Amino acid sequence: MIYAVFLQKPDPNPQELCYSMQFIITAVGPDHRGLADPIVHCVTELGANISEIQMFDHDEESLFSMLTRVELAPNRVRDLSEAANEISVRTGLSIRTWSPDIVDRKPRLAICATYRTETPRAVLQAVQDGQIAAEAAVMISNRQACRSLAEEYDVPWFTIGDAEGKADDDQLINICDEHQIDYIVLARYMRILPPSSVWKYAGGRIINLHHGLLPSFPGMRPYHDAFAVRMLTYGATCHFIVPELDAGNQIINQSTFSVPPGTPIDAIVRRGQEENEPACLVEGVRRVVAGEVRLHFNRIVATA
Amino acid sequence: MIYAVFLQKPDPNPQELCYSMQFIITAVGPDHRGLADPIVHCVTELGANISEIQMFDHDEESLFSMLTRVELAPNRVRDLSEAANEISVRTGLSIRTWSPDIVDRKPRLAICATYRTETPRAVLQAVQDGQIAAEAAVMISNRQACRSLAEEYDVPWFTIGDAEGKADDDQLINICDEHQIDYIVLARYMRILPPSSVWKYAGGRIINLHHGLLPSFPGMRPYHDAFAVRMLTYGATCHFIVPELDAGNQIINQSTFSVPPGTPIDAIVRRGQEENEPACLVEGVRRVVAGEVRLHFNRIVATA
Amino acid sequence: MIYAVFLQKPDPNPQELCYSMQFIITAVGPDHRGLADPIVHCVTELGANISEIQMFDHDEESLFSMLTRVELAPNRVRDLSEAANEISVRTGLSIRTWSPDIVDRKPRLAICATYRTETPRAVLQAVQDGQIAAEAAVMISNRQACRSLAEEYDVPWFTIGDAEGKADDDQLINICDEHQIDYIVLARYMRILPPSSVWKYAGGRIINLHHGLLPSFPGMRPYHDAFAVRMLTYGATCHFIVPELDAGNQIINQSTFSVPPGTPIDAIVRRGQEENEPACLVEGVRRVVAGEVRLHFNRIVATA
Amino acid sequence: MIYAVFLQKPDPNPQELCYSMQFIITAVGPDHRGLADPIVHCVTELGANISEIQMFDHDEESLFSMLTRVELAPNRVRDLSEAANEISVRTGLSIRTWSPDIVDRKPRLAICATYRTETPRAVLQAVQDGQIAAEAAVMISNRQACRSLAEEYDVPWFTIGDAEGKADDDQLINICDEHQIDYIVLARYMRILPPSSVWKYAGGRIINLHHGLLPSFPGMRPYHDAFAVRMLTYGATCHFIVPELDAGNQIINQSTFSVPPGTPIDAIVRRGQEENEPACLVEGVRRVVAGEVRLHFNRIVATA
Repeated sequence: MIYAVFLQKPDPNPQELCYSMQFIITAVGPDHRGLADPIVHCVTELGANISEIQMFDHDEESLFSMLTRVELAPNRVRDLSEAANEISVRTGLSIRTWSPDIVDRKPRLAICATYRTETPRAVLQAVQDGQIAAEAAVMISNRQACRSLAEEYDVPWFTIGDAEGKADDDQLINICDEHQIDYIVLARYMRILPPSSVWKYAGGRIINLHHGLLPSFPGMRPYHDAFAVRMLTYGATCHFIVPELDAGNQIINQSTFSVPPGTPIDAIVRRGQEENEPACLVEGVRRVVAGEVRLHFNRIVATA
Repeated sequence: MIYAVFLQKPDPNPQELCYSMQFIITAVGPDHRGLADPIVHCVTELGANISEIQMFDHDEESLFSMLTRVELAPNRVRDLSEAANEISVRTGLSIRTWSPDIVDRKPRLAICATYRTETPRAVLQAVQDGQIAAEAAVMISNRQACRSLAEEYDVPWFTIGDAEGKADDDQLINICDEHQIDYIVLARYMRILPPSSVWKYAGGRIINLHHGLLPSFPGMRPYHDAFAVRMLTYGATCHFIVPELDAGNQIINQSTFSVPPGTPIDAIVRRGQEENEPACLVEGVRRVVAGEVRLHFNRIVATA
Repeated sequence: MIYAVFLQKPDPNPQELCYSMQFIITAVGPDHRGLADPIVHCVTELGANISEIQMFDHDEESLFSMLTRVELAPNRVRDLSEAANEISVRTGLSIRTWSPDIVDRKPRLAICATYRTETPRAVLQAVQDGQIAAEAAVMISNRQACRSLAEEYDVPWFTIGDAEGKADDDQLINICDEHQIDYIVLARYMRILPPSSVWKYAGGRIINLHHGLLPSFPGMRPYHDAFAVRMLTYGATCHFIVPELDAGNQIINQSTFSVPPGTPIDAIVRRGQEENEPACLVEGVRRVVAGEVRLHFNRIVATA
Repeated sequence: MIYAVFLQKPDPNPQELCYSMQFIITAVGPDHRGLADPIVHCVTELGANISEIQMFDHDEESLFSMLTRVELAPNRVRDLSEAANEISVRTGLSIRTWSPDIVDRKPRLAICATYRTETPRAVLQAVQDGQIAAEAAVMISNRQACRSLAEEYDVPWFTIGDAEGKADDDQLINICDEHQIDYIVLARYMRILPPSSVWKYAGGRIINLHHGLLPSFPGMRPYHDAFAVRMLTYGATCHFIVPELDAGNQIINQSTFSVPPGTPIDAIVRRGQEENEPACLVEGVRRVVAGEVRLHFNRIVATA
């Protein structure tokens, strides 16, 4: 695996290596004491520049999380990886390193779905057509409804749900780790990822499709909520998941359609599910994969 | 002036007149005692069926209002008009009768504007093109910025604002009364009509263009409010004004557009003002004039 | 049953009877055609002055409702009652007449409860102590949890719930009709009254206790919702139920308590349920029964 | 100045120094590159444990901020202070170190006010009475209205406003720096502190009094906003200011009062300003000064 090397702020001393690449290091553990120090020492010793640190605690759940974004000379990449492993083994922290600067290969997607097939199908088709320049590496679901889709598009399929559809959240992360997933795409996946999962893939790697306009219509029934206030416009929102914050600041794409007064709710929901949601997610994933947007201090920035 | 006669629920006795037409009677006065009785007696004596009554008080302002929707035999129309005049003279109430069942003539519009020319121009052009099957009877403004528009489209122009742009609200209603206006179109008119004006033309006769998606983005700066929560979708809302209620239930049309992340607010506002708002209002006015929607118990209903 | 006669606006002709009393007439039916006319004709013929009319439709449910508030000479009370019966028989409308001007007897309360005993007990005790000048006429519940309370305070008990606690809403109204209930007190009754029930006892006769501060914390879990946004103040709201509108305008009483940071949610809920809610409802019912507040055009007004 | 030394997690090796105290280091600069590294290196070399790091950017304003909370052996306090100075001089960052573990002296308050005298007077009186165990070190205002209060309580007075009341925000911070202020108390100070000022005193050192219940009633007119939705409960909120977040999670104290229906807004505002707000702020400042609450990852925690 070879990563891109981007020129940033050329060093005044031309003899020194002046390239660097961006890395995101996430660490999750049960105690905020001892969370920051080993990571900070590690990146400092590797000569990395620290661009961003975010720490959070969920004290009710004894879950402590840190995201560190650094710029590192490419010849130290292996050292970073080894150091992260060493810290993980020594401290018990769950640590991941990842760079958004991907070259010489296509980004790898995990497509998560539950019941509805329209949006996962649209993503799979857009990947096949080259509209999304990525690889559909795995499909993951807590239900069986989309299994035939995986077969149709020849993508490895993993079921992580029990008989009632309850998802094994750790298994989802394990599958993504094992398959070196770059981006987790929630294509109408109807389970909520726990904070620990979200933190493990923090930094702009989890892309969700919400079937309403955010931030106005969150919740489980956005079509019905908008209908109840007699709106004539319905929408979908593709956004990065950042667990500590409202979803309003991490919007990658929004799509809408308008209907005339008197349109029944069933027709609205059908049009949303069959046309608007798939188009919204495909364009959102395309933007991320194409590098047009990134998360920067928990906000979307255009990188074009 | 001849009104439509629509067949409704044919009477079992074929010898009786079985046609009727809908009338809306509004009454506004300074005291809620004595407001309802004369109207109710009048329509009862004329043999009208009462379909709807709405009463409100604004006790802080000593303003009491009533809307009565009745079905009346067409041969009693003149009697209704005379009775309304008589009550008005006798009681001092401000009374208006109006029927949405307009035939043999085009509905007459009063187009109200302030600074921006895009939406009033779009309405005037759509009237000229026949897209809106109405007559642009007058233009009314509290400023001079749109006066040349009136000249260009050869529509009588009335200024109701003083040097600071403060509007004479009574004069606005007087102009509409004198020109037998059916619908008041607020095409980016930047003054708020007082409750007494709204009540005088109640029942689905005042059409407003709000430059944001309702009910999510009310207020004076909906573009900036949506931008502040990092939305990528911006919209406009055409709605009937019903003063006692939130605007959420009276939406006639909504139009939207989406932008990619990083689009500056200035470009968003410009696109909204120049393209989206005019299209939204034109389609909304067209729906009302074409009789596709009506207000019914303060809610929009499709009449198709 | 004798009602109060209050002097209002003495007639210039002293020989005519110049007393009048207020009546509220509610009518509920399946069709808005034919709803208003018979009521309006009736009160007109009886010489009543119409003070207020509210009509609503729930077209999805084919439910049409009207509230009429009139002032009537006391010697026509029997005529009104008979006319209402006659209309009801002839048209199939569900009609009720009631006057808030109660004298020579105590107002009769129906106390509705489900699981929690604190608030119904507090109301029963306040009635027994004379703090609330009313009669606890019946207790109604969809569960059995409060039955012993009824026995303790010697109040007739009616169960209207099935094995799963689903309430028979019609039976609730029937019980109130049969026992000539003036006010329905929802003392932590955990079922939502349907619009048809609310309309039958419209005009300020249904008093609810909500266990959160309205309008900020509606919903089923107001303690938890306030806790989630880290509030340190918790409250309860006693309000009239008016089904077509937000509850914000019909507040009779609000009570609060504040806690220091770190107070666990369980302690907060307990204090709210055991102390704050009962006190809030008792004072609210007292205000209504004592005639200190009334509903007037869907708003609370102080009548002191 | 001597700081407290608290025992934390005794080290298994008794020969090592096992005391530590908490320090908050804030750094504000115009560029996020180079913000984190010098601070992180410094605390690492001093042997501090990093408990918390928060970084934010305000890219529109080129303002980058970091808060670092560390635990440090008391014998390294002077080294930390010197290192911070050295970094500040070398990098141009605005750096402050402060410990909430204050002993052998009273915490020093800067009391900021504008027009109303009730809340600053209440704080001054509570300090004089010993109810708040602090020293009123300075009063700061953008207006002259409270100057006589400073004289009455013999507290140094500083005016930072121009003729129109516009405040010199840098001067406010300079005064606090020079007078070694521990806590800035905004006692109805009617100017908004800019993010750069808030970051310089981040970590739970700026205590605000908002004259409404948060988060329900933010904004400039919370009494009127609550009145407009017909609430009967009015409140005040004492909270730490944390600029990047809603104020809902940093509440130190809330106080409320309830009124009967019909109470005029003027009487409500008067009671709020004269009784409720002063009591709310005094108790809030008392809690902070007494060490009963602290900010921990942007949330209030009880430290009792």
